[in-house]
Order: sequence, then C-alpha cells, then structure tokens
Amino acid sequence: MTTAPVRRASADDAGVVAQLLHDFNTEFDSETPGPAVLRERLTRLLAGPATFALLGGEPPAGLALVTLRPNVWYPGAVALLDELYVAPGSRGSGIGGAIVDRLVEECGESGVSAIEVNVDEGDVDALRFYDRHGFHLVQPDTGERAFYLSRELG
Amino acid sequence: MTTAPVRRASADDAGVVAQLLHDFNTEFDSETPGPAVLRERLTRLLAGPATFALLGGEPPAGLALVTLRPNVWYPGAVALLDELYVAPGSRGSGIGGAIVDRLVEECGESGVSAIEVNVDEGDVDALRFYDRHGFHLVQPDTGERAFYLSRELG
Repeated sequence: MTTAPVRRASADDAGVVAQLLHDFNTEFDSETPGPAVLRERLTRLLAGPATFALLGGEPPAGLALVTLRPNVWYPGAVALLDELYVAPGSRGSGIGGAIVDRLVEECGESGVSAIEVNVDEGDVDALRFYDRHGFHLVQPDTGERAFYLSRELG
Repeated sequence: MTTAPVRRASADDAGVVAQLLHDFNTEFDSETPGPAVLRERLTRLLAGPATFALLGGEPPAGLALVTLRPNVWYPGAVALLDELYVAPGSRGSGIGGAIVDRLVEECGESGVSAIEVNVDEGDVDALRFYDRHGFHLVQPDTGERAFYLSRELG
C-alpha cells in the first residue's frame, strides 16, 4: 500500500475543507450550517494562528481539522483534533493513518506539547485507531478514563 | 449562604493563580512545574486573548482557568474549563458553583458558543456538580458519552 499524500491546507483550500466537513456531518446526521458558511469561517480561521487543516489524497478525500490553544501545564501549545474524516469511497486505504502520522510529526516540529481528541464511547473502531496511534484512553496521570462534557450557550 | 465574590484575574494575579494551581496538583499527586514556572507562564497567558481565570473568595480560595479557541461549527469561540479548584478549607461554601455561574455568564456575554470540561470517570462528585450546572455527559448530538484521549509529545 502506498502512503496517501498529505498536505497542509491553505486558506485557498477553505472550499474543499468546508465540503468535506459538510459531508462528514451529513453522513452522521449531525447539524451543519452548510458549505457556504463553513467556507467563510474557514477562510478566516485557516489564515489565523489557532486553526490548521491537513488534507489527505489527491484529490483530497481525507481531512483533519485541528485547533491550538495555550495550556499552563506545558511549555508548548495543546492541539485538539477537532475532526478527522475520510470520504466513504476512500476508507481502508490508509489515508486516516497517514493524516494522523503527519499531524503528530507537524505538532512535534512546531513545539506542540500534547494532542487531544474526543471520541464517542461507542465508536470502538475510532478508539482502536487512536490507541494504535499512541493516544491514551486511560490517562497516564490519573490511571483512569476521562469524559468530555459540554454546555452550549445562547 | 452568601455568594462568594468572584472576579476575573488580571496578569497581576499570576502569582495567586499559580499558587492555587500548584496546590491543586500537589493535593492530587499530579506533576507540577512549581509556582515560579506557572507564574511566569500565567503572566504571559493572562495578558493574552486565549486564556482567562476567575478567582472566588477574598482572599482567593477558588480558581477557574479557562482557554478559548475557535471552532468551525460555531459562530463564537469554544471555552474549555481547564481547571476548577477550591482550596480544602473552603469547600462546601459554594465557591465552585459561584465560579461556574460566573463563567457561564461571562462566556454568554462575550459571545462564546459552548463551554467544555473533561472529568475523570471516577469523579462522581464532579460529574454531578457539572450536571447541576447544565454540562451534558451524554452529548445531545450523538446521544452517547464521549471520552477524552491524549498523546503527549516530545
């Protein structure tokens, strides 16, 4: 199996990133504001310092969307893998793994101290995938699992 | 019970915030780089746009440390409640609740779209506390719980 090409998205890629994110949420019956709104947001976000995206395959069929924030416990930033998506026709081709490998490499090179991801409890394939890529479900500092909780506003 | 006074920390409060965070991790046997390093980081972070802290009680005995990041699914930022700590002698006095109420209020006023927090699976008191404050363990969009996974780098 050849490794899928992975590249960093520029603000010019906002349209393709928006379409992949829209397809993602549509496939999994999650709300989406639509490709046009996503594209407008991504044009702004991808030009800024706190968001980046990786595209896998040519034409792109896989996407990682990542946000960065500071954290007092680490000298470097913490990266959150907000979304990882591979289009249905390209699954099983290694694109997702190639994207995560590149993410780890890029984060290491740019001084990021940790990468985080939130995974649904029932998504055993994703939990296994992230385990293979070195992401801990049982947190090393506490010896237990941690839940992600949220409250929407407004 | 009178409500504990809660105020937003300035960069000048970096020392007291650092001491509370150091006490937090020391109490729970987590690693800490020590008050001096934390203070230096906080002086920088609290002056920036992506980190803020709330202090409860006078003198301060409770702390919330919060980071902000963009998110493509929302028009506003997402706030992560990185740490919430109340010193042992001040627990049960309502400081933690007063801090979270103020956090929700401040986030609402400043256009934040969602607040998140990660909670250890075994910390039933914390899970109950956040439930009372409107934080969902079962995510509304998926109908299931989500785990927090992490990988440290370097």
